[in-house]
Amino acid sequence: LRYDYQQPANQYNDRFILSKGHAVPVFYAALKQIGLVSEQELLSLRKFDSMLEGHPTPRFAFNEAATGSLGQGLSVGLGMAINAQRKSLGYRTYVVLGDGECAEGSVWEAAALAGNDAIPDLIAIVDANRLAQAGTSLDAHEFTRYEAKWAAFGWRVLTIDGHSMVQILGALVEAAAHRQGPVVIIAKTFKGYGAHTMQDKPGFHGKAFKPSEATEIIEQLNAQFPQAHAYTGGMPVPQKPSAVQVKQPTAFAGVHIDALQTAVPLGKSIATRKAFGLALAQLTKDHSDVWTVDADVKNSTYTEFAEVVVPERFIQCYIAEQNMIGVATGLALRGNRPFAATFAAFFSRCFDQIRMAAIGRVPLRLCGSHSGVSIGQDGPSQMGLEDISMLRAVPGSVVLYPSDGVSAYKMVYLMAGYDAGVSYMKTTRAETPVLYDYDEQFPLGGCKVLRSSAADTLLVVAAGITVHEALVAADKLAAEGIAVAVIDAYSIKPLDAATITATARKAGGRVLTVEDHYIQGGLGEAVAAACGPEGLAVHILGVTQVMRSAAPEELLAYAQIDAAAIIAKVHSLR
Amino acid sequence: LRYDYQQPANQYNDRFILSKGHAVPVFYAALKQIGLVSEQELLSLRKFDSMLEGHPTPRFAFNEAATGSLGQGLSVGLGMAINAQRKSLGYRTYVVLGDGECAEGSVWEAAALAGNDAIPDLIAIVDANRLAQAGTSLDAHEFTRYEAKWAAFGWRVLTIDGHSMVQILGALVEAAAHRQGPVVIIAKTFKGYGAHTMQDKPGFHGKAFKPSEATEIIEQLNAQFPQAHAYTGGMPVPQKPSAVQVKQPTAFAGVHIDALQTAVPLGKSIATRKAFGLALAQLTKDHSDVWTVDADVKNSTYTEFAEVVVPERFIQCYIAEQNMIGVATGLALRGNRPFAATFAAFFSRCFDQIRMAAIGRVPLRLCGSHSGVSIGQDGPSQMGLEDISMLRAVPGSVVLYPSDGVSAYKMVYLMAGYDAGVSYMKTTRAETPVLYDYDEQFPLGGCKVLRSSAADTLLVVAAGITVHEALVAADKLAAEGIAVAVIDAYSIKPLDAATITATARKAGGRVLTVEDHYIQGGLGEAVAAACGPEGLAVHILGVTQVMRSAAPEELLAYAQIDAAAIIAKVHSLR
Repeated sequence: LRYDYQQPANQYNDRFILSKGHAVPVFYAALKQIGLVSEQELLSLRKFDSMLEGHPTPRFAFNEAATGSLGQGLSVGLGMAINAQRKSLGYRTYVVLGDGECAEGSVWEAAALAGNDAIPDLIAIVDANRLAQAGTSLDAHEFTRYEAKWAAFGWRVLTIDGHSMVQILGALVEAAAHRQGPVVIIAKTFKGYGAHTMQDKPGFHGKAFKPSEATEIIEQLNAQFPQAHAYTGGMPVPQKPSAVQVKQPTAFAGVHIDALQTAVPLGKSIATRKAFGLALAQLTKDHSDVWTVDADVKNSTYTEFAEVVVPERFIQCYIAEQNMIGVATGLALRGNRPFAATFAAFFSRCFDQIRMAAIGRVPLRLCGSHSGVSIGQDGPSQMGLEDISMLRAVPGSVVLYPSDGVSAYKMVYLMAGYDAGVSYMKTTRAETPVLYDYDEQFPLGGCKVLRSSAADTLLVVAAGITVHEALVAADKLAAEGIAVAVIDAYSIKPLDAATITATARKAGGRVLTVEDHYIQGGLGEAVAAACGPEGLAVHILGVTQVMRSAAPEELLAYAQIDAAAIIAKVHSLR
Repeated sequence: LRYDYQQPANQYNDRFILSKGHAVPVFYAALKQIGLVSEQELLSLRKFDSMLEGHPTPRFAFNEAATGSLGQGLSVGLGMAINAQRKSLGYRTYVVLGDGECAEGSVWEAAALAGNDAIPDLIAIVDANRLAQAGTSLDAHEFTRYEAKWAAFGWRVLTIDGHSMVQILGALVEAAAHRQGPVVIIAKTFKGYGAHTMQDKPGFHGKAFKPSEATEIIEQLNAQFPQAHAYTGGMPVPQKPSAVQVKQPTAFAGVHIDALQTAVPLGKSIATRKAFGLALAQLTKDHSDVWTVDADVKNSTYTEFAEVVVPERFIQCYIAEQNMIGVATGLALRGNRPFAATFAAFFSRCFDQIRMAAIGRVPLRLCGSHSGVSIGQDGPSQMGLEDISMLRAVPGSVVLYPSDGVSAYKMVYLMAGYDAGVSYMKTTRAETPVLYDYDEQFPLGGCKVLRSSAADTLLVVAAGITVHEALVAADKLAAEGIAVAVIDAYSIKPLDAATITATARKAGGRVLTVEDHYIQGGLGEAVAAACGPEGLAVHILGVTQVMRSAAPEELLAYAQIDAAAIIAKVHSLR
């Protein structure tokens, strides 16, 4: 590695990702040899206050990415390699994979894109030790298979004896010299090599030895590798390849609203997904660290608006959502602000990658379009009725759900400025009327009280498309002489619990939530949890069954989340 | 197809899965030609009362599987092909994929297993039309790439002109004759073939034409394909290949508890994951429709107990969770009761497949082991703190969380008998004391009131490992003179709202939930939603931040979900 160990964030450093995260003690031990980890630190492995966790996490600065859920490291490395390529930074990205994890489809999503786009300076090393946790790995030691697979996916393949230092070094030199595309080194290894009692035997995965066993094994290894035994530590810290230019984060001073004003006059309608696209394009134009990653739906999510503005910060990942998130993670870890967008439903395809990004403290920015039954005829497979639940259950996440173009546009800026974790916005397919003035503010953790009076007998909390249903219901109920308050809970996480509970108390202590989403883990449960300690009465309207193909308004009625359902529920609660 | 159209469930029928589900109108139209769909039905496409939805769903009996989220059909077909192989049923399984969806890693997970296991009578057809939704597909019309990829994954490859009926029929005959492994037919096609205004042009994906445009296009097609124009309908219904033997579902009369009794005497401890394995083995022994699918963790989830009993109903999917769920879906759709198990955390890898199984009304049976911070040192990537949230947000699902060996064992039987949707059990890594007698019953939607008195000032609702913390807390609080009720909410969905609210009312109307899971979408929010209409006060203890590696008891304390945290919270609420 060409690596400035004094500054792990040096943007010219080579990058090393241990995709087979369970092997991380070896990495820690190697860093001890070059003086970056002390003996005391090494022996703190897996203890509460240690930075050395059981699998790689960013609590240890030299862990390039959080791994431990297998098959994800190559996508992250690909994102880093694309960053190097497009900015001509010259660093190389190395990713060590296990043979077992090569059964994960996500590996082949990354391999396919890297091969197709001929990404240089990306070097994968497969530690083909034949044994997985519970048996032999899929391709075990059948090297013609590895070679055929990787070559078919567009990679230069080098197969070596992974226990021969001469072959290892030779392959690394050859891989570094190959600039026409990615290179994979298939290393034939044996698990427990050199420890005769366990070498190439099953049953030792993740097992710690008793002290007496460990002593014997260390003796075997010392006998087998006298040169390693003679090694006394100390290794030159590589010189940094060129002057450090640590990039400063871009300040997000204000919202450039012009693009939205041009697109939609007040009083007219625009789809929130389109407002998202307009804002993303504006951000991309104004901020050099804003990127977009797509999975073949840019003309549905409207990320195509951003591609047109700056094609060199747009990455087409094809229909491969797991790799899309991995690439975004790699870009974000190298100091960029990538947005990844697809249908809300399809974030269920890459939930594990999002989960790992959160563990890695990566500020992913995600937008899920076409959310809810309101998409209509395409049917349940396309609907996205669990995205709020998924994304709320991510530590440090933000979940936003705009009801109109102005709030959608402004909250894209809010996401751009949110660096503390994963931020998610869900958008709607249909056009919705613009509710807010262009200068309305939408702070994180806020909400908008849209209807309120001293006579309120109940508070309706809605978000996204159901805000419009709630307003219709409130107006019809008002005509009947029933006053209800209405809140647009655009910030579902964090939720504005203070305003919601205060408004509810003024409305007879009764709340009715309504959402175009399954009840479980959605807006209603978030409100119920927020109101829980107060002893307020919370009633929830949401989707409870498998949906079907039909017109949007039919499905809003069928799911009992339209204005009529709100009115009926209010009547039933009187 | 050799297909008995009078009985779609005939177990000897060939199977046809349209993995590129958006093309389903073509399938409906084809079935109209052979008289299985009426003109009126065809014209009801995508309407509320129609069985013909926008993407395939089981509301139409000839849709073999719900598709529409891309890249999933091959795994489902693989499960069906394995069913045919292991039962010698002789049917063939055909799966039509788009070229765009071949970028999905899940396709390669399925391809790798089918190739490795040389599964016969599985025929994939790739409709390589070059154009995806937003641009060209990854491999477009580069046929050497398709051929290299599929061959490398162990498939016989036939490349044809997909518009030549002679070549299509020839390839199908050749594929049917090849019994040594799976076969893929790569069909070179053009999107909109024969309609000159749109053939091979982008911008027509998912677009409907105006009536005038449609008329013109139909005229072009009539001119281009006069033979098709002359076709007047009518096609012989294939004869069924042999006598119908529709398998009767096995009755689950009683629980054979002996295996558990042998493994753990009352008063001792056993891990719930081990009790799961013991019950699964017993069920596998007693019921010929119980299968197990694994993703290389059988020695952690203890599904290895089932493998030993009946190896021919055990499928090793290697480290590929998406394909594991797809294979289980295929097996379930062919009348089996497969159980799929991995770490709870890794169900986040296949959430989209689970989502689609629910849309397809498939009774998947899932077990997630090693759930919660209580796994300890392996760290956050392995913890599974969002599984309750995920699995609750699945329509028709059941979510079970046993606290001890008896409840775990018995609830595996409960899952076996649950055919109405996806059932999920989460288990714990550590051993926990047996709380219940062997003859205790655990009905779906029930709970257990473990501590209760007239003096209760609060109800603690726990599940799984926190039940043990809650009992310790209750006993310590009792010693202080503070009486609290304790409920084991083993059935998290459906939740026993009636017992919980009744017990809460008797305990001062106050509830404290505690769970080894993120708060969002978990037990606490489920309880808050259930108690919402009653206006009870609900307080939630759960995980709120990214965890780390440490001893289990340290992490239960750090997450503030241990007995001490419960006691502190109860004190703060007085």
